[in-house]
Amino acid sequence: MKQVTIYDIAKEAKVSAATVSRVLNNTAPVKESTRSKIMQIIHKYQFQPNALARSLLKKETGTIGVIMPDITNPFFPEVFSGIDRAASEMGYTFFLCDTLGDTRKESQYLHMLREKQVDGILFLGGRINLSKCDPELAEEVVETASRIPTVLINGNLPGTSLHRVILNEAKGAEMATQFLIDAGHRSIAFIAGNEEMTTTAQKVRAFRRVMKKNGLEAAKDSVLYGDYSMASGESSMEKILARRERPTAVFCVNDLTAVGALKAAMKAGVSVPDEVSVIGFDDIPLASAIYPELTTVSQRMDLLGGTGVQVLHKMILKEKVKMLTVIEPELVVRNSTRNLR
Amino acid sequence: MKQVTIYDIAKEAKVSAATVSRVLNNTAPVKESTRSKIMQIIHKYQFQPNALARSLLKKETGTIGVIMPDITNPFFPEVFSGIDRAASEMGYTFFLCDTLGDTRKESQYLHMLREKQVDGILFLGGRINLSKCDPELAEEVVETASRIPTVLINGNLPGTSLHRVILNEAKGAEMATQFLIDAGHRSIAFIAGNEEMTTTAQKVRAFRRVMKKNGLEAAKDSVLYGDYSMASGESSMEKILARRERPTAVFCVNDLTAVGALKAAMKAGVSVPDEVSVIGFDDIPLASAIYPELTTVSQRMDLLGGTGVQVLHKMILKEKVKMLTVIEPELVVRNSTRNLR
Repeated sequence: MKQVTIYDIAKEAKVSAATVSRVLNNTAPVKESTRSKIMQIIHKYQFQPNALARSLLKKETGTIGVIMPDITNPFFPEVFSGIDRAASEMGYTFFLCDTLGDTRKESQYLHMLREKQVDGILFLGGRINLSKCDPELAEEVVETASRIPTVLINGNLPGTSLHRVILNEAKGAEMATQFLIDAGHRSIAFIAGNEEMTTTAQKVRAFRRVMKKNGLEAAKDSVLYGDYSMASGESSMEKILARRERPTAVFCVNDLTAVGALKAAMKAGVSVPDEVSVIGFDDIPLASAIYPELTTVSQRMDLLGGTGVQVLHKMILKEKVKMLTVIEPELVVRNSTRNLR
Repeated sequence: MKQVTIYDIAKEAKVSAATVSRVLNNTAPVKESTRSKIMQIIHKYQFQPNALARSLLKKETGTIGVIMPDITNPFFPEVFSGIDRAASEMGYTFFLCDTLGDTRKESQYLHMLREKQVDGILFLGGRINLSKCDPELAEEVVETASRIPTVLINGNLPGTSLHRVILNEAKGAEMATQFLIDAGHRSIAFIAGNEEMTTTAQKVRAFRRVMKKNGLEAAKDSVLYGDYSMASGESSMEKILARRERPTAVFCVNDLTAVGALKAAMKAGVSVPDEVSVIGFDDIPLASAIYPELTTVSQRMDLLGGTGVQVLHKMILKEKVKMLTVIEPELVVRNSTRNLR
């Protein structure tokens, strides 16, 4: 049976959850007739607010701010879903703040979230993904984190010590590159994102490292920079296909870019995976919804978001929690890659 | 030249926007050295806070709550982007509340947003899209709207009089159906969403109306219900392709469903558009990023979100504004449909 929450009690009594809370915790006077109606419903369901719900109702606001750079990139809504699902039992509501990666908007949101007295902040993207972050911007996050529990998801601010939950992106890029090499590919291109962002920089380094380890050359032009969008994947793939010597496989910094790359190949009449293999990164729902279904590296977005909010929840309850939690990526082999052996 | 905002002033003076506001509006004491630094920067840029910025800084919290049902459906992030872009000049920050279409979560968010004293609420999806909404749930929105300016985007609560901004979805469905008929299609299937939601019901009615007007039969099994997801589009299309007599065209309730339908066709070796035409609805970025590019009906999400926040902004400023604003859809013809004539 589904557990009864104070929201159910409130609904049935036709009062607000705050009123139910007042009755339960005796924190403020409630009209006698209302109180007795609420108590009847509480007895009817043998409702017992748990310690957590009690703490939420008594002390905290029950809201968490989630700062992310681009909700039109499906990776972020998926992480948010993971956060939401994992936290549904905890009774939090979430304010999602879309920053467009604009550090000024990030500052505004940090300011607003403090003003609104959220219980905690989950920070994704933007300044925490810059290879070189302005010390003032880093300091702003440190300052906020000293007042409000804050967790960085998939990011870092060098020189600071903040709680972080990350997917091992370098490892994921190594897995993808090694998978292609093991399948017999010798000439591999990498469609990357912005050069100054760690999510690209880490993967590019891992790609070059694995190529070298296998005695293969990753020529300078084997890495094409872009901006993580489908359009960027399409135009990079067009450039690759126009080359006199085409690679037999293309590794893409994320699935959106890979979808764009697939489109460019189809438009050019180049068969995937028969003539060129394509591998993505993230495993957004789209990856398995297109044809051919995309081989990719799963960022386990559900687990990433869920772990982030669990770490934050412990911090809010002042429990001990590790500074760094690392989630391991998974290779998901589908139909966009071909074994040449 | 980009207009200087109080955030720029604040950044350059290394103070918060609130401090700049205090100096501008003389609402609270500010240390003399800080005041003079701020005034110097204000003079340097000849900064003049406009009436709007002034009102925001003085009276309101500068935050707007956006309630939406599913941020993993790209339609909603795109509308949100439209809201954000249009409002960037207005100085608002947005709290995005994802409800998963769960009416209880909607109630929680309405409650939180009131508690957080947002200046306004934009409401999308969930209860405002139900053909039959529980009067208590409707009353909750009316109650909130009596205290906080509220705009419904693409929805309605029958029996209430709330401000609304809608895209003419029925008209869009008529345009799509007529377009297919004009291209010579006689047998057309419709992959719909949930039957009890107005966004499906309106389109199904429009589809049947236009078929009838053209003397064509829309048999009962020509409409397949689902849930707006890619998976739902794929499985509905599989059923359609398995029929002894296949339609020559399939109209999909949204682009996600259409992407799923395209995948089912490719998997079955059925060429789109040569053997079957597919038309979508929404014009999300994915529509033009896949191959073949999708013919669709644009919901003009940017304009829809932008108009929503403009209407809300006028309400916040207590200016007069129409109760109902209707945006007209646009047919976008790409490569997933074929002319049979």
